[in-house]
Amino acid sequence: MKFICNRSDLLSAVQTVSKAIPNRSTMSILECILIDTTKGGISLTGNDTELGIQTVVEGQIETKGIVALDAKIFSEIVRKLPDGDITIETDENYKTLINCGKANFTILGKSGEDYSYLPELEKGDSVVMSQMALRDIIRKTIFSILDNAEDTPAQQTMKGELLEIFGDSIRLSSLDGHRISTYRIQLKDVYDAKKVIVPGKSLNEISKILTGGAEDDVEISFTSNHILFEFENTKVVSRLIEGTFFDVDKMNIKDYETKVKINKKQFTDCIDRATLLVKEGDKKPIIFDVKEGNITMMISSILGSMKEDMEIEKTGKDIMIAFNPKFVLDALKVIDDEEVEIYFVNSKAPCFIKNTSESYVYVVLPVNFATVQ
Amino acid sequence: MKFICNRSDLLSAVQTVSKAIPNRSTMSILECILIDTTKGGISLTGNDTELGIQTVVEGQIETKGIVALDAKIFSEIVRKLPDGDITIETDENYKTLINCGKANFTILGKSGEDYSYLPELEKGDSVVMSQMALRDIIRKTIFSILDNAEDTPAQQTMKGELLEIFGDSIRLSSLDGHRISTYRIQLKDVYDAKKVIVPGKSLNEISKILTGGAEDDVEISFTSNHILFEFENTKVVSRLIEGTFFDVDKMNIKDYETKVKINKKQFTDCIDRATLLVKEGDKKPIIFDVKEGNITMMISSILGSMKEDMEIEKTGKDIMIAFNPKFVLDALKVIDDEEVEIYFVNSKAPCFIKNTSESYVYVVLPVNFATVQ
Repeated sequence: MKFICNRSDLLSAVQTVSKAIPNRSTMSILECILIDTTKGGISLTGNDTELGIQTVVEGQIETKGIVALDAKIFSEIVRKLPDGDITIETDENYKTLINCGKANFTILGKSGEDYSYLPELEKGDSVVMSQMALRDIIRKTIFSILDNAEDTPAQQTMKGELLEIFGDSIRLSSLDGHRISTYRIQLKDVYDAKKVIVPGKSLNEISKILTGGAEDDVEISFTSNHILFEFENTKVVSRLIEGTFFDVDKMNIKDYETKVKINKKQFTDCIDRATLLVKEGDKKPIIFDVKEGNITMMISSILGSMKEDMEIEKTGKDIMIAFNPKFVLDALKVIDDEEVEIYFVNSKAPCFIKNTSESYVYVVLPVNFATVQ
Repeated sequence: MKFICNRSDLLSAVQTVSKAIPNRSTMSILECILIDTTKGGISLTGNDTELGIQTVVEGQIETKGIVALDAKIFSEIVRKLPDGDITIETDENYKTLINCGKANFTILGKSGEDYSYLPELEKGDSVVMSQMALRDIIRKTIFSILDNAEDTPAQQTMKGELLEIFGDSIRLSSLDGHRISTYRIQLKDVYDAKKVIVPGKSLNEISKILTGGAEDDVEISFTSNHILFEFENTKVVSRLIEGTFFDVDKMNIKDYETKVKINKKQFTDCIDRATLLVKEGDKKPIIFDVKEGNITMMISSILGSMKEDMEIEKTGKDIMIAFNPKFVLDALKVIDDEEVEIYFVNSKAPCFIKNTSESYVYVVLPVNFATVQ
């Protein structure tokens, strides 16, 4: 195999497909990037069998062939080479020469015969949305998936996010047993309803390689076991998680006793200050004392105590309620509006944090108040 | 004690004195910042008994007093408070209230009675130089001190740098058994000769808090056991290391067989690329094959091999010589000139890397060539 391409194009392709390469695997072939020039283009693939990414680089193929190269060392080499044309050539033993300017690297590749190519999918309907919007809804919900899921069907679904298409809108939801994040946005067209659970890890990696803006589309298709994302020269295939996701709408309430409108930046800064008194792993709650026009926030730990007042707009009853400060901060970080709205029922019921347009709804359980006084 | 000062002034003072606070100490009082308002100003001190830093903050003292506050938690609080006036007030039990805007923190301080104040020094002659220059000579030599010194007198001196005053110039030197860095700069005035060994850790911390430019001076004074740096509102006192430093001038050579002039950036990039084939802890050398007008650099490891040519200006004999690539890179990183000069004697003798003005001289031992082929 021999081909020539531009070094920065190759670097960007290598970095894209590397997102699907496991850090360590019992199958060393999975730690490789597959380069295949036998199908009409220079195609690079990374695949950890749950998530697979394939992308095509422009360039000139001189001899067709296939080689699997260790992803870490190959991407380091491409990253450190100077800009210009890069020539990659392999011999019959998969010894691979990488030349760029006056620099010549030789590394030993592997045959691609054991490599898992991306599954060939029968594409059904596909949904089109902007890359920026997809990146945004992932960022706004991914943080509340369950990190350390136990091996039960219910917990396994919580390692993923529920992706739903409702006609002209798409919604992502995640939950970890303490809070639920849901974010819904409008689509340009109307599509059939759909409901799948996508692994959080896959969404996380996709959001890193979706570099396009509001004008750049991504096409999403579904099969019974897979979800496929296609954009520019890149295809991303992820397995779906089987099972039934928690009914996130069950939590939604119409009735609340207290509604608070608060400046997001000041509120974030205050809780951020409060958390410096809480050591990692320590579960000290922050207490909110909501009164007419004012919220007092209080926290105390072995390190000291903090008390701070903030102006708010309040309607409804006064309330005193306590939360894990991290869970409140996580939601505030992904809200882009200047103000947030918080809805309380009582000091033991879940509270709702919403952005102004209510496209974002975050449900968080309070901490039992009696134990924290 | 009660005083009011500006929050950003206080933050900067806290960050300065924190450089002398040990991360962990068997004496918990050393993990504190001492605040003393009894001597006419608001003075903050950090002191790990080897290095002590004291700085004075502008502000208004309402009641005089002394308190020792945990450095980590106090600096985090000051860092996260909003800008504005900050009031600090302690009661007779050293309970300390920190107020800024609507935020109120309460932490428990300690009595300052066990705190080690900076030693009172009888100042002799002092040397004046610009803060920028001092920062620069430290940066250019500190990297080759011996990190893991054994408990022998000779190794203990190698944990420090030799600081020498020769009339109108100052020189810092460091060595670790594989290489020597020396950097000499001119002073504006003429001073008595001086030769002391300053702990590398002290120099490292000083270089971080010397934020002034070429116009901002630092005054350096010496006693038999200490060195004192004074600038703006800050005093830094460090113990000196006793012992005899290796005679760095012994290594300097007049005769060389080969002289190479090389573009620094290209040379650095090439060695940097080569090192990606060397895993941490692996001691693969880079081989330089110096010929008329050209240097070929080669490295090989279990990961692969690299070969790269570069144009050079050469005078003298051809030579083939091998080095630990990290040791060459370290020197190149601190040379600011576009070109560097390298002097070789033979493949077993130390080689010299110099900047254009020869103010910087770096001596590095080659790797035994026979074993690397």
